[in-house]
Amino acid sequence: MIDVKPILEGNVRAAARLMRDLDDRRPEGMAALKQLFPHTGKSYIVGITGNPGAGKSTVVDALIAYYRSLGEKVGVVAVDPTSPFSGGAILGDRIRMQRHALDPDVFIRSLATRGHLGGLSRSTFDVASVLDAMGYSRILIETVGVGQDEVEVMRAAHTTVVVTVPGLGDDIQAIKAGLLEVADVLVVNKADREGADRTERDLMHMLDLRTGDRKAVEIVRTIATRGTAEGSGIAELAKAVEAHRARVWQGEAGSERANVRAAAQVAELVRALLADRATQAMRARGGMHELAQAVVEKRSDPWSLAEELVEAL
Amino acid sequence: MIDVKPILEGNVRAAARLMRDLDDRRPEGMAALKQLFPHTGKSYIVGITGNPGAGKSTVVDALIAYYRSLGEKVGVVAVDPTSPFSGGAILGDRIRMQRHALDPDVFIRSLATRGHLGGLSRSTFDVASVLDAMGYSRILIETVGVGQDEVEVMRAAHTTVVVTVPGLGDDIQAIKAGLLEVADVLVVNKADREGADRTERDLMHMLDLRTGDRKAVEIVRTIATRGTAEGSGIAELAKAVEAHRARVWQGEAGSERANVRAAAQVAELVRALLADRATQAMRARGGMHELAQAVVEKRSDPWSLAEELVEAL
Repeated sequence: MIDVKPILEGNVRAAARLMRDLDDRRPEGMAALKQLFPHTGKSYIVGITGNPGAGKSTVVDALIAYYRSLGEKVGVVAVDPTSPFSGGAILGDRIRMQRHALDPDVFIRSLATRGHLGGLSRSTFDVASVLDAMGYSRILIETVGVGQDEVEVMRAAHTTVVVTVPGLGDDIQAIKAGLLEVADVLVVNKADREGADRTERDLMHMLDLRTGDRKAVEIVRTIATRGTAEGSGIAELAKAVEAHRARVWQGEAGSERANVRAAAQVAELVRALLADRATQAMRARGGMHELAQAVVEKRSDPWSLAEELVEAL
Repeated sequence: MIDVKPILEGNVRAAARLMRDLDDRRPEGMAALKQLFPHTGKSYIVGITGNPGAGKSTVVDALIAYYRSLGEKVGVVAVDPTSPFSGGAILGDRIRMQRHALDPDVFIRSLATRGHLGGLSRSTFDVASVLDAMGYSRILIETVGVGQDEVEVMRAAHTTVVVTVPGLGDDIQAIKAGLLEVADVLVVNKADREGADRTERDLMHMLDLRTGDRKAVEIVRTIATRGTAEGSGIAELAKAVEAHRARVWQGEAGSERANVRAAAQVAELVRALLADRATQAMRARGGMHELAQAVVEKRSDPWSLAEELVEAL
């Protein structure tokens, strides 16, 4: 049984220990989350995603500096679905955010893929809950890429910022289309580059193609500079986030949105727990190797086998 | 009950109908796959993934032309985890591969995200099985992005080709690291661009950091040209694929690899079937909205609720 009192008091080492327990899927970790739950709900969570090469981490870096300058405690969840390493071991905190690592009011946690039955979205919700209970009033979720993982991770955010940049390649249109679905605020970063006007026009056009809610998404231009809140446009970006917060997280619409977010979290947890069960079911049938061999030798087919396994649960 | 005879005879309309049934998760679709299974195992499946903007679709286009020039029937599964649309409706076949759409010996199928409990990897395996049973001797799986989805989709491939390009942005190192894990053959596309030497050196260096198997991954330079097999380096790329095939899919290592691939397919199917069950369990508890409301009002916490749902299955 984990004593959650130090975590509620903001003890960083106790929190890091709990996060490791959660990584290892220890039952004590889940029990601790249940105890922390009554103390959550005070943080505002901002997700930052977007095209590779758009300078997301620089935008995050500048936002940390900005929120710190307002006296907010800032938690960061750096999510990298392309990395096999979890915990503090990935690029995220090591290189990009060194400067903030010395600030006791900034807590940075990296999350990466831990086995394909894992569930990054679940871990993101879990870590955000811990940071929330610890008193971090602002939580930033950063992802490195663009894909369905990122879209799911963003379900934990209250406001999702999508960062793009002028002059990207030809696969970009398709990527933008997927990301636009989740964008609450759009950023054109490196706005001093040639083509910024055109990028903004393109984005507006794509928003127009969405069903009638173009005005709901603000487009902000930034020239983020690593390590300073004075990066051009960062204050405007923070303002756009607050505007979105005021617009959608209040009143009846706000309750509805909170419901959708909680539903996503429960669904993700159910999925993760079922995945654990599936692993157990396979072990009970002599392990996956044995089962797969039946498929290779065409003694059984994958679909029948999967059905049998699920029936046996 | 679906009559699989026309599909086995290569009837394209019957196959397209089955694929729609699979999209809709109709039980008849799964029954048809079981019937087709004894006729599968003859295709060689090549996956193509890599950095956005690297020109993957052009490489795929050139490879289609190359394999067609050898008289092979070519099936293409174009996977886009960032798009909410499935079926024939996405960018993939509409724009990029128009030319081949008129060739009756090229079958192109687009796959995209259908709800977050879906499973793109499952669908990729399913569609590849249909194409295999239809007699497409060569199947190309193309993905648009780089992320965990792509890595999982590539489990269906026999050889995975990772395409990169000189002179990409600063997030690229992390992405490459994730992709390198799955690369059997590496392509430096647009090799006439400045920086190609450096890109190749960087890739070699990163391969050196992998555990001792650097020599196992060939690096090929291409200047793919849309719509012609004569794109510089395409024949060399095809040769590198065959070299990989000869090296790892034969003998004892080959059996082991076939086992791993079958295991991935069964695991993916189990996960997908469990996800369907989870949806049913939530419905039985009055729907997700009701459950999520208990979380919003802090009458329950997400972890306890998820446990209860899974217990009730």
